Amino acid sequence: MKNTFGNSIAVTLFGESHGNAIGAVLDGMPAGIPVDENFIAQQMSLRKSVGAISTARKEADEVKIVSGVFNGKTTGTPITFIIENQDTRSRDYGELAYKARPGHADLTANVKYGGSQDFRGGGHFSGRITAGIVAAGAVALSALKANGIIIGTHILSCGGVYDREFDDIQTDIGLLNDKEFAVLEPSAEEKMKAAIMAAKADGDSVGGILETAVYGMPAGIGEPWFDTVESVLSHALFSIPAVKGVEFGAGFRYAEMRGSQANDPFRNVDNKVITDTNNCGGILGGITNGMPIVFRCAVKPTPSIYKEQQTVDLTNGENTTLQIKGRHDPAIVHRARVVADSITALVLLDQIVLRYGNINK
Amino acid sequence: MKNTFGNSIAVTLFGESHGNAIGAVLDGMPAGIPVDENFIAQQMSLRKSVGAISTARKEADEVKIVSGVFNGKTTGTPITFIIENQDTRSRDYGELAYKARPGHADLTANVKYGGSQDFRGGGHFSGRITAGIVAAGAVALSALKANGIIIGTHILSCGGVYDREFDDIQTDIGLLNDKEFAVLEPSAEEKMKAAIMAAKADGDSVGGILETAVYGMPAGIGEPWFDTVESVLSHALFSIPAVKGVEFGAGFRYAEMRGSQANDPFRNVDNKVITDTNNCGGILGGITNGMPIVFRCAVKPTPSIYKEQQTVDLTNGENTTLQIKGRHDPAIVHRARVVADSITALVLLDQIVLRYGNINK
Amino acid sequence: MKNTFGNSIAVTLFGESHGNAIGAVLDGMPAGIPVDENFIAQQMSLRKSVGAISTARKEADEVKIVSGVFNGKTTGTPITFIIENQDTRSRDYGELAYKARPGHADLTANVKYGGSQDFRGGGHFSGRITAGIVAAGAVALSALKANGIIIGTHILSCGGVYDREFDDIQTDIGLLNDKEFAVLEPSAEEKMKAAIMAAKADGDSVGGILETAVYGMPAGIGEPWFDTVESVLSHALFSIPAVKGVEFGAGFRYAEMRGSQANDPFRNVDNKVITDTNNCGGILGGITNGMPIVFRCAVKPTPSIYKEQQTVDLTNGENTTLQIKGRHDPAIVHRARVVADSITALVLLDQIVLRYGNINK
Amino acid sequence: MKNTFGNSIAVTLFGESHGNAIGAVLDGMPAGIPVDENFIAQQMSLRKSVGAISTARKEADEVKIVSGVFNGKTTGTPITFIIENQDTRSRDYGELAYKARPGHADLTANVKYGGSQDFRGGGHFSGRITAGIVAAGAVALSALKANGIIIGTHILSCGGVYDREFDDIQTDIGLLNDKEFAVLEPSAEEKMKAAIMAAKADGDSVGGILETAVYGMPAGIGEPWFDTVESVLSHALFSIPAVKGVEFGAGFRYAEMRGSQANDPFRNVDNKVITDTNNCGGILGGITNGMPIVFRCAVKPTPSIYKEQQTVDLTNGENTTLQIKGRHDPAIVHRARVVADSITALVLLDQIVLRYGNINK
Repeated sequence: MKNTFGNSIAVTLFGESHGNAIGAVLDGMPAGIPVDENFIAQQMSLRKSVGAISTARKEADEVKIVSGVFNGKTTGTPITFIIENQDTRSRDYGELAYKARPGHADLTANVKYGGSQDFRGGGHFSGRITAGIVAAGAVALSALKANGIIIGTHILSCGGVYDREFDDIQTDIGLLNDKEFAVLEPSAEEKMKAAIMAAKADGDSVGGILETAVYGMPAGIGEPWFDTVESVLSHALFSIPAVKGVEFGAGFRYAEMRGSQANDPFRNVDNKVITDTNNCGGILGGITNGMPIVFRCAVKPTPSIYKEQQTVDLTNGENTTLQIKGRHDPAIVHRARVVADSITALVLLDQIVLRYGNINK
Repeated sequence: MKNTFGNSIAVTLFGESHGNAIGAVLDGMPAGIPVDENFIAQQMSLRKSVGAISTARKEADEVKIVSGVFNGKTTGTPITFIIENQDTRSRDYGELAYKARPGHADLTANVKYGGSQDFRGGGHFSGRITAGIVAAGAVALSALKANGIIIGTHILSCGGVYDREFDDIQTDIGLLNDKEFAVLEPSAEEKMKAAIMAAKADGDSVGGILETAVYGMPAGIGEPWFDTVESVLSHALFSIPAVKGVEFGAGFRYAEMRGSQANDPFRNVDNKVITDTNNCGGILGGITNGMPIVFRCAVKPTPSIYKEQQTVDLTNGENTTLQIKGRHDPAIVHRARVVADSITALVLLDQIVLRYGNINK
Repeated sequence: MKNTFGNSIAVTLFGESHGNAIGAVLDGMPAGIPVDENFIAQQMSLRKSVGAISTARKEADEVKIVSGVFNGKTTGTPITFIIENQDTRSRDYGELAYKARPGHADLTANVKYGGSQDFRGGGHFSGRITAGIVAAGAVALSALKANGIIIGTHILSCGGVYDREFDDIQTDIGLLNDKEFAVLEPSAEEKMKAAIMAAKADGDSVGGILETAVYGMPAGIGEPWFDTVESVLSHALFSIPAVKGVEFGAGFRYAEMRGSQANDPFRNVDNKVITDTNNCGGILGGITNGMPIVFRCAVKPTPSIYKEQQTVDLTNGENTTLQIKGRHDPAIVHRARVVADSITALVLLDQIVLRYGNINK
Repeated sequence: MKNTFGNSIAVTLFGESHGNAIGAVLDGMPAGIPVDENFIAQQMSLRKSVGAISTARKEADEVKIVSGVFNGKTTGTPITFIIENQDTRSRDYGELAYKARPGHADLTANVKYGGSQDFRGGGHFSGRITAGIVAAGAVALSALKANGIIIGTHILSCGGVYDREFDDIQTDIGLLNDKEFAVLEPSAEEKMKAAIMAAKADGDSVGGILETAVYGMPAGIGEPWFDTVESVLSHALFSIPAVKGVEFGAGFRYAEMRGSQANDPFRNVDNKVITDTNNCGGILGGITNGMPIVFRCAVKPTPSIYKEQQTVDLTNGENTTLQIKGRHDPAIVHRARVVADSITALVLLDQIVLRYGNINK
């Protein structure tokens, strides 16, 4: 299976950046779940390009639901989201039809598809394809929220500027979800935007780190082999374009710890087993322990930069240089944040439905 | 699907630490591939506990192949590896039947399986279950090697001591595969072992980082959604007990880079497109670009330590303390290294067979 | 996975009979395969209702491809087919919102989806959903044909009237594929249509049997367990609404044979191993033997009839009677025939790509 | 996935007829389910060859459980069943190493595996591999029975002799499950055995039909696309060697019915919706309706017969003749019956756990 992911809840993605439409099919949603089209639109707007820190390409990103919803609720059969492409200026991409952009999938797509790929705007490799995830994820996020499970992602780092880490997770998630530029420490926003603008001024781009937290997950979800919660989440997260690292809880910091620091001691508080620390990020032996799930994704800098780059001509294999024009984001980490929330919701909802047969835990 | 992973090539794991036997079923191997039982035994020995830095539990780890091999070659039908458990001292685990060990899966297993799990020695959550992966992986490693694809993992960091990074990957892999304690820089071995022994003396344990490289992968393997090479590798890697972070190429270091540093420029050398740098770790848009695949796994410290720890009694939920006895590893990163090689081989062989229908690229 | 089927080639179906649109996503098609929109339209017309023997509902069934095709060829990424619903007269279905139609899925859908299902026109259970299979199947049929593999289905029986069985399969398939009412023996058409009209005059409906043949399949495709060619074909065929029986080769007639009659002796003719008889329907041990694949599907009579029927009211569980109005087919076997061809093509193409990594055998 | 089948409950089969051992891994069983080794042994004995009507090869078929059971109950992790091969007389198979037996998989295996297959006794294609299904199925049957769901199969036809059809299904299943030769009408046994002995006397074999019923399945299980209950059951059933036809309810008899006869009217009796007739075999729109599930499997005559047959020599492709010796069954339909029960239990338990997250409906 390629463009489909999930078991009880599965999402199928389709579309190319400059084709007719992109979208998603969300299958397996239990019947009778309310579908709030306003919330979907709101989530779509969080993914949109905004202001000077984003690409000049502006898409309405209106989501049309063509199946699976009846009288405002899920029917239990596949929900199809269609998002038409409108602001496509394919003329910008002339040279890019044959010169592989460094950091992009142009070369690998050419090898894999033998030249038949839709190269315009990155085709099916475009970050634009994540719009389908956001639409489908909005339905999942609502369903989880109605069951007490909330998800939030902040920009932990962007262009070398750091936000504070999560503190009280339930409260912090509440701070994030309406923000266009999701940071916990308000002062981080201006500094990060300044770093983005500085890179933009240089015809360059910046990377960053997203940190996601999930509050309210029941304990006992996941498998020891091979579908650990880390496995299924990372599988989905690493398919978000530009994500090159995923770590849970203390993650790479575990490498420098001793077991006595690393282990999270258990404690019974009010008949609920909790841990004071949460180095394990809410997952032990691949299975949720009832504490918040916390993970971080490394996001590489947008590969489309305006500086001249060395590359090869795919038509004859010769070395050449490339000067990218067109409309591009000097940073994508702020736009990728809602994608992280959405894909996390889809994965966790799938895990819950696999475990309980329904969404009610 | 739970204990089965893969598409064209799939591995199923079974067994508990103190049960009769553990093992694996390897399905989908093309027919006619030589199976070298000596190489399997050699790989098993790399996973074994050795000397003072490992647990005192010594298992023969003899692998019995009960199906799928005929006249020394794969038949094309499932290959079953059985490894009997012998040196089980279940009497050591008395108290652990009801007190959850911090950092272990005891609590989460108890929630998930409602008390029916085989708690002895961690049961199905034990690192011992990885022996099945090593047996199956040995067959995959041989098959890949015969096709020019080699894999090696070194201990990049252990107990705060760092090995050098990969340099010339083809040569470096050659240095690693026979080593019991796999480091590139010989002097790192003693320092790491000293760090492990220091922790052991304190009744404590250490974590580390494994770095894996794959040389010889053809370009064009993987999918844009959702089965990116990063996705399928991380899915498998995160199911290795204690792995809590996975990053490809520059990974989390991408967060501080600009696009102009991050992008790997393409260059045609002798009619082969290469990149001078390899920040992307050999994967662009989820698809191999023909350069070495490079990734790192964060390994948390062994959770079994001899210091007293705070926990809860699973029988009545009351707070209590726990003093682990038994036989345990003060570090597992050196033993996990062959597991990383093995699971990487299984995943990549699956990708190759999915793409070409056979192992010959 | 629910509405998605296949491995290397997978199809996802969506839509409801009276919703905005129905369609399919076809994933995994190798890149560079020509897509002939005229052929798709022609296949769609074979599924359409025609004349007095079919429902009065007339749908344009225009297929819009919104992704995965570029410059007339497959890109290698998902192909999405959208078919808008136009001639929906939902007012006809008033009483059917709460009275379960015997032979239909109304009752079982109500149990499964708890009343949230889109009941209009059978919703997602409608035979109309097969239009997506026909669109996707057309692409698969073309690709197979270009590789020498042809598929044809005839109406072996309808309303008690029998067509002749397949004789020279290659020639017979050639006779069938342009026919609107696919029979091998021309005289069978009028008799079958007369049987349909007679049932219609009685407010009743008829069932039948479809017989499908595949010529040109290479030997060696399929698995002994569990993905025998019979298994994967029957899995797909039994999801066509109204199919209640599937048999391969001699099928149920095997029950009365002795081994000496049943076994197909092998014979080498011109360096190709053939069998004189083909009782096994081209499949031995779950694997193709290079002879034509032949199977039959039993199709139950259209459950929508105009006679009064006994049923229950889903709102209160009370016994009641039901008189179906609306527009319905007195037979569907002739319309299901192109669905059988299409789904067979999708399944076999998947098997070929799984085996060879591409479509070229 | 090849030798693994199922979603929430999955079974993996391994082994060859004359290898060291055969067996199965049963994954996904909920934890805490009692495992009755006596019942497993009893089911194994129903599959064994008995008396003059079966092969002279006698296997102890002792099932050793090496994982997944602790204190007599399932742990929730994979259950592995190992059955050693003992009575293997491979010397009987000399000529069969290179002459393809008509009706067997020798030729197709040779094409698929290029000569590396274990040809002895049919290798992985042997009916002997079904022993693993019977062992795993026994656990599933017990679990279903404890939840009020019972399954039974009778020999509807063998060698041209017919048993009566199911009447009162709950009672009839009770009549069948301890019988070694499962018929409903006692007089049918002798007649069928006589037909088998007559064929044996001629060096020939007979086929038959198995009819299976399931009582107690809840309504609302299954999917409209593609995992209809018919689809998943037929997928599994067609992987039983020798099954060449599967029909549900009226099956192929539907072809001659009119809708008014075919439709099963609904009726509320004691607040439960039932149907007086059960032509649909308990499945409407792919979903269970709460009535008994009823289906039939056509079983082809054992292909191993003692009459001389025409075939080809696989080593040089030349036409030759073959006289099979060795030990073979003149009929397998009576031995396949417990395999049908077992695989049905595995499939339906998977469906139930997928739907409810656990076995309790």
